[in-house]
Amino acid sequence: MTDQAPKSTTVKARLPRGLADRGPAEIAATNKMMAAIRETYELYGFEAVETPFIEYTEALGKFLPDLDRPNEGVFSFQDDDDQWLSLRYDLTAPLARYVAENYDRLAKPYRSYRAGFVFRNEKPGPGRFRQFMQFDADTVGSASVAADAEICMMAADTLEKLGIKRGDYVIKVNNRKVLDGLLEAIGLNGKENASRRLVVLRALDKYDRLGPAGVKLLLGEGRRDESGDFTKGAGLSLDQVNLVLWFLQLRMNTDFDRGGKTTDINPRIKTLASSSEVAEPDMLSAMDRAYGEKSQIFREGVAELRLISQLVESGGYGDGRIIIDPSVVRGLEYYTGPVYEAELTFEVKDEHGRPVRFGSVGGGGRYDGLVARFRGEPVPATGFSIGVSRLFAALKALKSPIVSGADTRGPVVVLVMDKDQIAAYQAFVTTLRNAGIRAELYLGSAGMNAQLKYADKRGSVCAIIQGSNEREKGEIVIKDLVAGAQVSAAAKDMDRNEYLALKQRAQFAVPAEKLVDAVKDVLARY
Amino acid sequence: MTDQAPKSTTVKARLPRGLADRGPAEIAATNKMMAAIRETYELYGFEAVETPFIEYTEALGKFLPDLDRPNEGVFSFQDDDDQWLSLRYDLTAPLARYVAENYDRLAKPYRSYRAGFVFRNEKPGPGRFRQFMQFDADTVGSASVAADAEICMMAADTLEKLGIKRGDYVIKVNNRKVLDGLLEAIGLNGKENASRRLVVLRALDKYDRLGPAGVKLLLGEGRRDESGDFTKGAGLSLDQVNLVLWFLQLRMNTDFDRGGKTTDINPRIKTLASSSEVAEPDMLSAMDRAYGEKSQIFREGVAELRLISQLVESGGYGDGRIIIDPSVVRGLEYYTGPVYEAELTFEVKDEHGRPVRFGSVGGGGRYDGLVARFRGEPVPATGFSIGVSRLFAALKALKSPIVSGADTRGPVVVLVMDKDQIAAYQAFVTTLRNAGIRAELYLGSAGMNAQLKYADKRGSVCAIIQGSNEREKGEIVIKDLVAGAQVSAAAKDMDRNEYLALKQRAQFAVPAEKLVDAVKDVLARY
Repeated sequence: MTDQAPKSTTVKARLPRGLADRGPAEIAATNKMMAAIRETYELYGFEAVETPFIEYTEALGKFLPDLDRPNEGVFSFQDDDDQWLSLRYDLTAPLARYVAENYDRLAKPYRSYRAGFVFRNEKPGPGRFRQFMQFDADTVGSASVAADAEICMMAADTLEKLGIKRGDYVIKVNNRKVLDGLLEAIGLNGKENASRRLVVLRALDKYDRLGPAGVKLLLGEGRRDESGDFTKGAGLSLDQVNLVLWFLQLRMNTDFDRGGKTTDINPRIKTLASSSEVAEPDMLSAMDRAYGEKSQIFREGVAELRLISQLVESGGYGDGRIIIDPSVVRGLEYYTGPVYEAELTFEVKDEHGRPVRFGSVGGGGRYDGLVARFRGEPVPATGFSIGVSRLFAALKALKSPIVSGADTRGPVVVLVMDKDQIAAYQAFVTTLRNAGIRAELYLGSAGMNAQLKYADKRGSVCAIIQGSNEREKGEIVIKDLVAGAQVSAAAKDMDRNEYLALKQRAQFAVPAEKLVDAVKDVLARY
Repeated sequence: MTDQAPKSTTVKARLPRGLADRGPAEIAATNKMMAAIRETYELYGFEAVETPFIEYTEALGKFLPDLDRPNEGVFSFQDDDDQWLSLRYDLTAPLARYVAENYDRLAKPYRSYRAGFVFRNEKPGPGRFRQFMQFDADTVGSASVAADAEICMMAADTLEKLGIKRGDYVIKVNNRKVLDGLLEAIGLNGKENASRRLVVLRALDKYDRLGPAGVKLLLGEGRRDESGDFTKGAGLSLDQVNLVLWFLQLRMNTDFDRGGKTTDINPRIKTLASSSEVAEPDMLSAMDRAYGEKSQIFREGVAELRLISQLVESGGYGDGRIIIDPSVVRGLEYYTGPVYEAELTFEVKDEHGRPVRFGSVGGGGRYDGLVARFRGEPVPATGFSIGVSRLFAALKALKSPIVSGADTRGPVVVLVMDKDQIAAYQAFVTTLRNAGIRAELYLGSAGMNAQLKYADKRGSVCAIIQGSNEREKGEIVIKDLVAGAQVSAAAKDMDRNEYLALKQRAQFAVPAEKLVDAVKDVLARY
């Protein structure tokens, strides 16, 4: 007795910007992909944990939303006790809250993984969503860079498990301490230089896109882009700029991006002999010699990279799968030690048909300060996050079996020829389902042709028909929809015998009790 | 160079009320449970679809939030273009939006399933969360009650697939048209009686809790509960009350709740001979005779129930698995036809140790008006929703293999005895992982005893140890932590030979190259 008459003003069926629905093929493929990642992580002793989508805004470490713009960056809303809540914007901040809350109960070091949607209240764009999926792994409670090395090896194993071939990816490792030490060594230390340091790091991060000339401008006075917009630079002196550029040269020589092949990556890491500018036998030694005396933090950073390098080597991953790359910056401010990035090195075509590298599908690093927000004492932690949809796109580009080959065949459709026989048709469906065959009764009100069209649209291989003639004879007609389509398509080009054989294949009658066997035979054809 | 020193005021690590974290055992069990449901749904030809967590508030069919209480019932927030967004509060409203948006593209009737979290901005309580998981299946575009019958059969199959035995559950079916017709027949038709109809339906819905006497009061003047609160009644006349109560008597006689066993359910559906009050050979005929002449909608409802009954019978589910129960109301206002409820009938103990029925784990019904909100024309639809956490609790109470038997053994732990040998220990770990054995390097900074305690806490079966002595001999010590615990526990009660044998089992050395074989042997012990 509810009033369900359509309202005069209907509501528009649409999604808010930056949100998307997903269909069966994408869901099945993503699930397969997630299962493969999970399997690898569990092999490494990481265990699943899950936190809710909503947290206290202050627990996420963002400032309370401005009253005028309560949704800056995150989706926020007030609880009925006036406290601010937010949708999680990543899986790291909730993990820090979780670990702090369960600190004494957890076996430490605590290895865990989490997968799920996160939300960003940002301007959406092509391939840029306001809800997207991340897959994270973190080790909390270990100050050893062995934890960082382990996650890098796990990232490599994960990519291979997903069908990405060795040589098609590289895990690049750097250390924030090295970057911080570099800035200290060129005199950018102290609180008064905090903002300039940030400008320098941002400039380094843009090396990929802008190249050395662009970065040089950003380190100096500034840079005007194609559109005429001016970005103010860090205002470094020429000496300082040159020192930072030397660092970028180091990068050049270990950089897979610049045309290196898997086979010659390894020698490049170990010797930079190919570069006339930095003719050192060992990149890390070269770095140490250049800046080690000027900065304690730089020395520490290089020593940590060296240990990671050894661990990676003894794990067998020193063959170019995991490399040290001093240019890796990673945007997030909270990193305090090693940072790492998983990069796909194979080429895809961009929108103009030009070949481009696929690029980063995940990254992470050490964030010793994050749990400390809750506990008042530093808790060492390191973690890695995979951008699931980006990786998914990469696997599709590579035609990885993980994301393809999902069963796209529809269920067997039992047609409803006589409405008063629906109970009998239902019984056919149940018989098929009991035999483990995906099957459905046609539930619409259309006639036979429309029902067959429905079955085609569902991708069904076969349809089951019983009209009054068949019923009297105790028979059922099996229609092979794939063969049927071939008959229609090729009828003209066939000789009569061929045609008749195919037609017999496409549609035949069996005794009702042979239903399951006959359907199994047809399904086995494809 | 980020400032990560702990702040003087730390943030409290806590979750907002009504939200919960989940650990590895619960996640693994839930995943197994979801996979089983998914498998059954796919056998029925239902396909996966997924919608985002955020929708336009108006698309969800709730009124725009009041400015004073913007979060009434749902979590809502304004987008930067001032439009209201909400977290989905169920999976049906988003499906209606999805179908309306993709109407022409979808093969109809469109069978789909969706699983995921939904959000309610309500007062949380014990077992009552503000984020919880639902698993829905819906058929859109079919006006035939065969679609409703199919979903009821699928619900039965799903519960059995999850390990719930036949007889431990029942799917109860009713029809809103019958309820609406009943109210029409006793003179409660027309817009002027809309609120009274709602009061009557609410009273019927409370039959389980209040019994006939309580419902009688709610149908008449009203009822004062134990706490002294007065609920105003529907104000029906004694005649009207008696007619409605007759309907409840019908229910009594088909009700599994009131002591019926599976074996005698079926005869009860077909004959109500056991009841002296309604001595009719067939409940549906009895209903028809009583009200059919007075209400067209009642007749329609009974005819639909009869067809469902036939379909269920011909599918083989008429053995008490699916029964017609005229008392099923279901709260949601948007139902327009058949309604159904999956109820677990076995007993569990309540907080006072008294046996209680487990009760409802899911339900649904036909909602022909929901898609119409978007399309301006009615689109027939019917759907079923499982309360995942409630069902999960039920499976645990039943000790279903679906939710137990998850592997709770921790990974093999390789101890770090000498810090400068960490690369060698890492190599052991990699060797084990490459052999498919879950393994991890101890990543903390504690001594040997604490490392072994860590392995115990992780639930590890074995630990790998190599000190300098072993290293010189090229050996590795395997420690069987389970046998080790037995040695400690039972040392006093054993004779010397037994003790030595167990001790040898609990810890032994092997040549380094035998690592994998030795670990496999130990793992095979448990």
